[in-house]
Amino acid sequence: MENSPFEQRRRAVSEGLRERGLDALLVSLSPNLRYLSGFTGSNGALLILAGEAILITDSRYQIQAAQETSCRVRIAKGAVLLDVVAAIERLGIRSLGYEPARMTCEFFESLKPRLPMKASMIPAGGWIEELRMIKSPEELALIRRSVETNSRAFEQTVARMKPGMREQDLATELEYRMRRLGAEKPSFDTIVAGGAHSALPHAQPGKTRIDAGLVVIDMGAMLEGYASDMTRMLHIGAPGTKAKRMYRAVLEAQLAAIDAVRPGARTAAIDAAARRVLKGHGLDKAFTHSTGHGLGLEIHEPPRLGRKDKLRLREGMAITIEPGAYLEGFGGIRIEDTVVVTAQGCDVLTPTSKELRVV
Amino acid sequence: MENSPFEQRRRAVSEGLRERGLDALLVSLSPNLRYLSGFTGSNGALLILAGEAILITDSRYQIQAAQETSCRVRIAKGAVLLDVVAAIERLGIRSLGYEPARMTCEFFESLKPRLPMKASMIPAGGWIEELRMIKSPEELALIRRSVETNSRAFEQTVARMKPGMREQDLATELEYRMRRLGAEKPSFDTIVAGGAHSALPHAQPGKTRIDAGLVVIDMGAMLEGYASDMTRMLHIGAPGTKAKRMYRAVLEAQLAAIDAVRPGARTAAIDAAARRVLKGHGLDKAFTHSTGHGLGLEIHEPPRLGRKDKLRLREGMAITIEPGAYLEGFGGIRIEDTVVVTAQGCDVLTPTSKELRVV
Repeated sequence: MENSPFEQRRRAVSEGLRERGLDALLVSLSPNLRYLSGFTGSNGALLILAGEAILITDSRYQIQAAQETSCRVRIAKGAVLLDVVAAIERLGIRSLGYEPARMTCEFFESLKPRLPMKASMIPAGGWIEELRMIKSPEELALIRRSVETNSRAFEQTVARMKPGMREQDLATELEYRMRRLGAEKPSFDTIVAGGAHSALPHAQPGKTRIDAGLVVIDMGAMLEGYASDMTRMLHIGAPGTKAKRMYRAVLEAQLAAIDAVRPGARTAAIDAAARRVLKGHGLDKAFTHSTGHGLGLEIHEPPRLGRKDKLRLREGMAITIEPGAYLEGFGGIRIEDTVVVTAQGCDVLTPTSKELRVV
Repeated sequence: MENSPFEQRRRAVSEGLRERGLDALLVSLSPNLRYLSGFTGSNGALLILAGEAILITDSRYQIQAAQETSCRVRIAKGAVLLDVVAAIERLGIRSLGYEPARMTCEFFESLKPRLPMKASMIPAGGWIEELRMIKSPEELALIRRSVETNSRAFEQTVARMKPGMREQDLATELEYRMRRLGAEKPSFDTIVAGGAHSALPHAQPGKTRIDAGLVVIDMGAMLEGYASDMTRMLHIGAPGTKAKRMYRAVLEAQLAAIDAVRPGARTAAIDAAARRVLKGHGLDKAFTHSTGHGLGLEIHEPPRLGRKDKLRLREGMAITIEPGAYLEGFGGIRIEDTVVVTAQGCDVLTPTSKELRVV
């Protein structure tokens, strides 16, 4: 177990404590905790010190924690928080890093007054998220499996699809196929939006029957904890000139953005590449969101690929590329792949073809 | 719209501000926000003042917010937090209630230094959760539909079940049926655990084939935002004496607990009723969790029905009654219904029969 990925990650944190002025980092229950320990239970906290790591959870997870993690495990008799306090005291921790975006005010306000007199809490947000941005080969293999499972579920479902289905029934079938193929669950609530409804980027599938026009399907799987994300377009019946033209413009924008992905490129530059193409087609105002986002243990994680995002891409990042164009009353088009930044440029993981499929 | 349930609830909050020394309550994105506004988007904040309520969200939800809520809606150009600050300033709010269990430290630490000099933040946790404990007739009707949908999905799936199925495939079928019947999603990750695996109260369905012994199925639907929760037991092949005896003990405990449910009874008394029966069968140490919990917009919400919970039940509460017994190496048994506290006692909503079903 000495060299498990979890131990390597914990070692990186242990070694970074001193330069941050911390004796320990407290990791609240979140994908960060899973990333650093392997533990997948629904209650717990992780303390990482210079030389050790302690996972505190409750009795429901005693067996599971022992199976999933090589950390020392403590089973709290009552609230996990009280065992966190006891460990901080016992280990003489004076400066405790915490993650403000992952901790509720309630937990913070309960913890702080219980700490030993000389102990202080120091925000250490974003640290683990930054480590998580660069995926290991093992993580990339899981993301690839998640992507492929998701694409297979899409193909199996579309092959059986009939015009006149309700949006929510199509979403149900997509998620069912995904799970039959081994996914734990969808990585987010599947979006299926037909006709004018497709003009809402975050549409919720409803009782509307899909019987004419554009259909946007935005779906992802969660497989062994890792997310995939894909958007594809169908058209019920032969598409008209406007839909075809709009589709070609968004596809061109998507390909241009993919083309711009390489180590060292700024995230805003990827977004700009897509936006420039859409502007050439008079659709820049119809592109109302950003071009993409990182994904991994969460469906949305850093980096963001928006207009103002300055971060530079690095090898091993897994991101989505998903420009779109939305015209109220007519419909919307979005095309999205999951891609990985490589030494030379990028790998498009999504194997699904990108024509506008006519059903 | 004057008398929509959402407006009635907001009025109750408005009228309670003064006695809490608050000018306004800030409700973070959570089921509380949905409860008070009807809004179901994934980004937003709600400010409730004495005479008005403002929902702040982003441009993705402009159309949806207008459809779902009668609150005044503001669309934030950037971060919602900045618009919250602007509204607090504009409206001259000095004492702002916030919900510590629903707000991250990050949000709090960003908000606080941006507030006008004289404004202060005052914790007001648990207030909305307390209102939510007592369900309206409309809410109870939704919970009943959720329960019935869930039970139908169970019956349809069990009717097709074959010994030798993998746990995860059975979970997939249950969730598929639920959605086909109109549920948005499961109210939690469905538990299917066969054989000795059933001894883990929070088992995750795995690749194990269900081919002998006890099978626990713990499942719930989310329907129009409201949760149901049910546990039933199957047995693959004829059960032995030990399983039959244990089953009868848990069933007796569950019926005793249901019998104890009435307005004015303490939650701990319901738990004690179940525990007393199990003790009579020498199974008190095998009952490792509490007897139940409230449910509604969340699968777990107040009240809790544990050993030390002192709250008194009131008419209109929706709770689960779910004692269990778990023997490591042998298996576990849990029987769970969703029930509603009535004027006289309680209504068991769950229509599914409670024999140990042999497959």
